[in-house]
Amino acid sequence: MANLKNNQIVDDSHLFKCSVLSTPERLLLGPGPSNADPDVLKALARPPVGHLDPFYIDLMGEVQQLLRYAWQTNNRLTLPMSGTGSAAMEATIANSVEAGDTFLVAIKGYFGHRLADMAERYQANVVSIEKPWGEAFSLEEIEAALIKNKPAIFAMVHAETSTGVCQPMEGIGELCHKHNCLLLLDTVTSLGGVPLFIDKWNVDLAYSCSQKGLSCPPGLGPFTMSSLAEEKISKRKGKVPNWYLDVSLLNKYWGSDRVYHHTAPVNMNFGIRESLRLLSQEGLGAAWDRHRLNAERLWSGLERLGLELHVEPDLRLPTLTTVRIPEGVDGKAFTLHLLEKYGIEIGGGLGSLAGKVWRIGLMGYNSKSENVDRILNLLESELPSFRQNVAFAA
Amino acid sequence: MANLKNNQIVDDSHLFKCSVLSTPERLLLGPGPSNADPDVLKALARPPVGHLDPFYIDLMGEVQQLLRYAWQTNNRLTLPMSGTGSAAMEATIANSVEAGDTFLVAIKGYFGHRLADMAERYQANVVSIEKPWGEAFSLEEIEAALIKNKPAIFAMVHAETSTGVCQPMEGIGELCHKHNCLLLLDTVTSLGGVPLFIDKWNVDLAYSCSQKGLSCPPGLGPFTMSSLAEEKISKRKGKVPNWYLDVSLLNKYWGSDRVYHHTAPVNMNFGIRESLRLLSQEGLGAAWDRHRLNAERLWSGLERLGLELHVEPDLRLPTLTTVRIPEGVDGKAFTLHLLEKYGIEIGGGLGSLAGKVWRIGLMGYNSKSENVDRILNLLESELPSFRQNVAFAA
Repeated sequence: MANLKNNQIVDDSHLFKCSVLSTPERLLLGPGPSNADPDVLKALARPPVGHLDPFYIDLMGEVQQLLRYAWQTNNRLTLPMSGTGSAAMEATIANSVEAGDTFLVAIKGYFGHRLADMAERYQANVVSIEKPWGEAFSLEEIEAALIKNKPAIFAMVHAETSTGVCQPMEGIGELCHKHNCLLLLDTVTSLGGVPLFIDKWNVDLAYSCSQKGLSCPPGLGPFTMSSLAEEKISKRKGKVPNWYLDVSLLNKYWGSDRVYHHTAPVNMNFGIRESLRLLSQEGLGAAWDRHRLNAERLWSGLERLGLELHVEPDLRLPTLTTVRIPEGVDGKAFTLHLLEKYGIEIGGGLGSLAGKVWRIGLMGYNSKSENVDRILNLLESELPSFRQNVAFAA
Repeated sequence: MANLKNNQIVDDSHLFKCSVLSTPERLLLGPGPSNADPDVLKALARPPVGHLDPFYIDLMGEVQQLLRYAWQTNNRLTLPMSGTGSAAMEATIANSVEAGDTFLVAIKGYFGHRLADMAERYQANVVSIEKPWGEAFSLEEIEAALIKNKPAIFAMVHAETSTGVCQPMEGIGELCHKHNCLLLLDTVTSLGGVPLFIDKWNVDLAYSCSQKGLSCPPGLGPFTMSSLAEEKISKRKGKVPNWYLDVSLLNKYWGSDRVYHHTAPVNMNFGIRESLRLLSQEGLGAAWDRHRLNAERLWSGLERLGLELHVEPDLRLPTLTTVRIPEGVDGKAFTLHLLEKYGIEIGGGLGSLAGKVWRIGLMGYNSKSENVDRILNLLESELPSFRQNVAFAA
């Protein structure tokens, strides 16, 4: 019999009075997370099963097939990474980049910079082309950079969450392949909400997240890779310098071998399975239409209120709108007011847009006309006093 | 008005008939995941909040403080990594190892090999000492290896999930510090279930998981780091070669700066907050006692049934028991029978113990006398026919 006097040797200095979790109700109309569909939350709360349970193995296959539909791809290697969107972002780079590879990034917002930072950590020769935050790249600009730099990988962001720009994609993949280069695409704020065609656009590596267009809480990072990208990886000289995100190991678990890699986040996978099922039930085209219609309702409403949209109409992203903070208004004080008084979250600006724009998200479950009307009504009723306060203070 | 003919351009080839998720009831008595506490599942299903919401920032502080209690540490850098236990394992290595560092691993099971594989990917000079699976290391063996190899980091597994051995820890941290080396410890199968003292044992880097002693589903990887480890990291010549797991960036989000790093898996953090609250309410000493008592009930019951335990009594791990598969029994067929007929999961052997042992886990919420009795009764009633089948076949 063991000595059961353990209580006497435990240090209680970090103990504190901690009551049952109670969380506030929030309407999340910022850059993400968005609210989760109630059906997805129900799935999250199912008792876990083992990560090698035959039931779970079947569920993994469903998730992969539904992800292929959502991304419009036949890629074999399509799976959710067991981390957030940033982990999936790093997975695309960790697997595809070898030391010394030229990695060209088109930077037009915060997440382009993140791609560059990550690629440097994997010893890529990182070169970049840049545009002001709020603009997109033309095919000519991209081809000139491909010719000049001869990169092994060209990386860009489809839907820039920091600026609200949707990069037109037609022709970019063809250019990359013509110049013997892989196309790596960030689809974090487009998957499920904006027309997106991995195969038709010749995208070789892509990643996304669970908490935006898919209406699931954050925690999984959808990942996909073309056979061309697989080919590059199969020729690597050494192991992928990241064990957790190594697709050659992950493929043995997600593929037919079912070799244990890590203990899968089973409940998060219950959740994403439901979110993808709901998307497939609505239909991808219908979901894209809904996001577009609600975004247009928001855009015209904001303009009716005299607010200025940061992005020109043709480049606007239906899932995320950047609206300029009116002269003299303390943008941060206003978002805090909306959160504290009404439980509504909208986002502030990042990087070069910090203090200049608000970011309003209409993603997945939250892309609804009543949410559009609610935020428009609040802007109409609450913003004037914030303008006046400033006027009085001045 | 945009062209809303999206349905006409969507490829439906990956669509399939997919009904609402329905999951089987499982009693998870394998190596993990274990069943989650129902209160934790309720927390998981709360609507998400933003990852910079003042409510969430407070919750992050609670999680950190409760983790310090569970790990018995004052370490400032104590937080759950946004991935599973294997991500937290990689975080300890990615941050602490610099290319060329000598990394000594004590291998006595599957997870020691994993530590070696990961450290190689970070360009460590990996050296190892090995013991048969089922044994532990002595202080003398460890000191001899420290003197011979002069490592910067000595890594070992406290509770080996693959063998059921609990490594005695007294004196190891002192030896490491005497020989100018950091101690890195895997506590995946000990946190919350087995006496564990990060500070008293002079552990410099440790990681764990959410789905075992903490009774939360898998998806988060608790991580902690001493000031000595922080000091080594502060002297790094270059950036940590892993963006997602870089503690210098994570510290800006989890520390007082609250700088955005990645979108936190908020619902998983709701869950781990509840699991840690439940542990603090029971009391760490009481939880350790409970695990020990139920394990002893299991051990004596198994011996009463004539089954042989793989590990000698002094080294047995209360959270995971390895029991030898009787001569002639098809171990895999028997575990599949338990799963399919009774919804009970127990584990098979890994690596050099594959086919030789079953692994029975009694972890967190599942460490209960009724679960012990249930598995003992099933072994008593079901195993004979598996022995007979073999006898008939022979």
